[in-house]
Amino acid sequence: MPAQDYQLLIKNLLKTPLAQASGKQIVYRGERRFSYPELAERIHRLGGILGHLGAVHGTRVAVMDWDSNRYLETYFAVPMLGCALMMVNIRLSPEQIAYTIDHAEAEILFINKDFYPVFKQIHHKLPRLRHIVCLADDGEAEVIGGPLYSGEYEALLAAATPVAEFPDFDEHTIATTFYTTGTTGLPKGVYFTHRQLVLHSLTLMSTFLMAGLNGRISREDVYLPLTPMFHVHAWGFPYVATLMGMQQVYPGRFLPSTVLKLLATEGVTISHCVPTILHMILTAPEAQSIDLKGWKVIIGGSALPQSLCRAAMARGLDVFTGYGMSETCPILSLALLKQESVTEENDVATRCSTGLPAALAEIAIVDEEMNILPHDGQSVGEIVARSPSLTAGYTKNPEASETLWHGGWLHTGDIGAIDPNGYLHIMDRSKDVIKTGGEWISSLTLENILLHHPSVSECAVIGIENARWGERPIAIVVLKPDGEASEEELKDLVRKRVDAGELSRYAIPDQVIFAQELEKTSVGKLDKKRMRAIYGVTANSAA
Amino acid sequence: MPAQDYQLLIKNLLKTPLAQASGKQIVYRGERRFSYPELAERIHRLGGILGHLGAVHGTRVAVMDWDSNRYLETYFAVPMLGCALMMVNIRLSPEQIAYTIDHAEAEILFINKDFYPVFKQIHHKLPRLRHIVCLADDGEAEVIGGPLYSGEYEALLAAATPVAEFPDFDEHTIATTFYTTGTTGLPKGVYFTHRQLVLHSLTLMSTFLMAGLNGRISREDVYLPLTPMFHVHAWGFPYVATLMGMQQVYPGRFLPSTVLKLLATEGVTISHCVPTILHMILTAPEAQSIDLKGWKVIIGGSALPQSLCRAAMARGLDVFTGYGMSETCPILSLALLKQESVTEENDVATRCSTGLPAALAEIAIVDEEMNILPHDGQSVGEIVARSPSLTAGYTKNPEASETLWHGGWLHTGDIGAIDPNGYLHIMDRSKDVIKTGGEWISSLTLENILLHHPSVSECAVIGIENARWGERPIAIVVLKPDGEASEEELKDLVRKRVDAGELSRYAIPDQVIFAQELEKTSVGKLDKKRMRAIYGVTANSAA
Repeated sequence: MPAQDYQLLIKNLLKTPLAQASGKQIVYRGERRFSYPELAERIHRLGGILGHLGAVHGTRVAVMDWDSNRYLETYFAVPMLGCALMMVNIRLSPEQIAYTIDHAEAEILFINKDFYPVFKQIHHKLPRLRHIVCLADDGEAEVIGGPLYSGEYEALLAAATPVAEFPDFDEHTIATTFYTTGTTGLPKGVYFTHRQLVLHSLTLMSTFLMAGLNGRISREDVYLPLTPMFHVHAWGFPYVATLMGMQQVYPGRFLPSTVLKLLATEGVTISHCVPTILHMILTAPEAQSIDLKGWKVIIGGSALPQSLCRAAMARGLDVFTGYGMSETCPILSLALLKQESVTEENDVATRCSTGLPAALAEIAIVDEEMNILPHDGQSVGEIVARSPSLTAGYTKNPEASETLWHGGWLHTGDIGAIDPNGYLHIMDRSKDVIKTGGEWISSLTLENILLHHPSVSECAVIGIENARWGERPIAIVVLKPDGEASEEELKDLVRKRVDAGELSRYAIPDQVIFAQELEKTSVGKLDKKRMRAIYGVTANSAA
Repeated sequence: MPAQDYQLLIKNLLKTPLAQASGKQIVYRGERRFSYPELAERIHRLGGILGHLGAVHGTRVAVMDWDSNRYLETYFAVPMLGCALMMVNIRLSPEQIAYTIDHAEAEILFINKDFYPVFKQIHHKLPRLRHIVCLADDGEAEVIGGPLYSGEYEALLAAATPVAEFPDFDEHTIATTFYTTGTTGLPKGVYFTHRQLVLHSLTLMSTFLMAGLNGRISREDVYLPLTPMFHVHAWGFPYVATLMGMQQVYPGRFLPSTVLKLLATEGVTISHCVPTILHMILTAPEAQSIDLKGWKVIIGGSALPQSLCRAAMARGLDVFTGYGMSETCPILSLALLKQESVTEENDVATRCSTGLPAALAEIAIVDEEMNILPHDGQSVGEIVARSPSLTAGYTKNPEASETLWHGGWLHTGDIGAIDPNGYLHIMDRSKDVIKTGGEWISSLTLENILLHHPSVSECAVIGIENARWGERPIAIVVLKPDGEASEEELKDLVRKRVDAGELSRYAIPDQVIFAQELEKTSVGKLDKKRMRAIYGVTANSAA
């Protein structure tokens, strides 16, 4: 391929920090530090390991690890060799893990010793596997998988012959794959090409460049992911942080105390996570003595509650929403503040909105006939998208792929509106939305109202089947350790907004259930499917 | 083409400011203001005009205008229709203008009335032209070109049927073309595809995002170009400013007084120009009463002299170098400061260096056998490049295209070195470099030394043929209005550096010539080719 036909390949992302002679480091748990030339050297050695294990163009290589520099190395070396990196969701059930690894046809597995117990349960279900590499923080190799065992990562790296030059190939080559657990059925595989990941990096960076008032990042930032790296490329940030030559800090297994220590000692300035993780960090005892001022945190996965946003801002954080999903690489929008439309009053609401479309991302709200609805903040419909970085479909599942791309747009399954300032507002997941008395009730709005009560720590509003009204909302509430609140007191909070004409009277929950904790999915989102299964039976739908 | 196969098209750049509901404006000379929806409406109407004039996929449409909102509209509408926008260099001789328009096979011409006298001289040399549209600030149509005359721009816009939807097509479709005047021969055409321009926009924005200490831009900036829009897409900034939804100010014909007025009244914060234009603005009488603090100015086209950089910084400007050329779309590097390598001492030198490679740009220094030289700051060779946005060749000129891409790299024709911090340093154009006594002398270094003299306003150092030494340097100097300096005094400035061991004794100019002004090219760069022709004869090369 002549040099004029420049291909958008992941290997090219790595060239920029080296060309710019970045003096920053990749830090693992504050214990190991690598310069960018060292990172590149390790990636070239990892390429050597893979070649030695027989990986060729198209081979699937699976990884089971916590967030680490090792994982970052696989983000580059595996696709740079023309192989596809399969990021295993280690929070799935062993059954599902086996299904996804086998369905992806992975032949090589890099696995942290922490997941050996899981592997032992599923080993017999992975007939395609040919090689296993042990990942061990302590460097002590431990054999697993009998004849498949190929050695310990650091020892193999040390002994490897580095790849001299990674090959050139078509930018449409698949680089990554992973599985998304929808509300129904088996996990579905999505996949992304080199071109899509390079464009995701460039459009995400271009979107950040627009930010004038919040979310301003630069190469001088220090990055620490709080989303697992198996989860949609950690939102694409490891590629961006590397291209930018940033200081990067990987925390290993997530523990609030470890993370808080790293925030303080490494001077972390940019992270991303689901709201529950931020809540966990801010309320950890160790957090009280640490200065978190200037920490930029992008919240995704679930809506950012205004109460959490305010609590974070009171600690000096620059916190705002990012939106996307497994199928979208993921970033579709960021809640950037605009000088011409932000005020002191709507600052928090804007940060908690779903945000402005990212550079080149087209987002539309459509009705059931795919008519595009106006950006009036009132018209509610399904959110559909187009962008340069969306999965072309689901692996070996043409029917689901067809549905995903019905009518030439990617269907998010989320329900929302776009306001005249261009901000997207998600009402709810289409599967979770509450339709009662012919009206859509936003469970997010109700959750935000209940979270205003000083005793409420967390809450979820779900729709329960009801013969008369279709569905009726109920609330599940977790109180703070010494908090007190009665069911009527909480219903009254909603009733006040109804009386003020802000909400339909259908919005008052039929019931408030006090619980010790909320059900969460493998990636820390509220698991409303399970809540409906649990509470749907006991709920007293007597409205 | 299915929506999954997203094409990188210029029409998609325009979607983002609309989707983000940018409340900013496109301002022409402070006299006319357009919102982004109005800009889009005008672009759709311009598409209607072009269709009406018979433009089809592939038609070449030429523009001769000053920097204006009209020019911006053609940047979008022409390529969005699948046509190629030809940006005519209005500073070329009439002869060359005729050659380039005809060589590009332009069929439609948008021409400002200011250029009617030129057109009348060359009309008979443009047999391919089918339509002419008049551009008039005063709105008063003036017929030209006889039967080719098709009307005045604003009147045609008002009457046009807007294009409902611009077509989809392959991202490799040619979007723009223009001509570069090298040191020898006829002007050569370069051309860029939709994909290349979209990627230039995204990589340029990604490069700016890296900036932590200087050159920080955002959607809240106010953009005013000081490079003509016919000159390498005004360095790609109009596309970037539009994608970002920035406030944009177009000054029409360049006059320091107009520009200074707009800087003050429109609150301009980001511009780009050649050093001579910045010098002209800073020394204009009106400039003394205007607050220029915080104005970011990117300098390219020629090296940024340290004296000019200091003078600009003293006025509160954030000034630094960008590097590129017609063949490279253009931006290859920006002089961004890095926390880990910038100090108070090297701040100015770093800003005046050629800068760090832009995102995804690969820059190498090679010897005559195309061996890549080390980044040691000492090894000097030709600068070659790869990136996603380089012209594939010269129009209808396979030999020159072959030479341009010899060995799989684009040859810039510039001579430089890369230092261990990753900064590129251009010694000189390969055609201008002074080779004397077997050593390369950097004319830029000598110019910087002479510019230190308080009486020197501008200067150029050129190499003059010499039988004994190959070449010998001479200096042409323009003194400030009340400045005084003798030839010996100026030579002594260089001699001191020689005595200090910093320069070879070959560097002392044979002669210092005092001139009223320096010869400049059509885009305001020092025209050393002409200076050599003028002064080479008179110079006394007696060393």
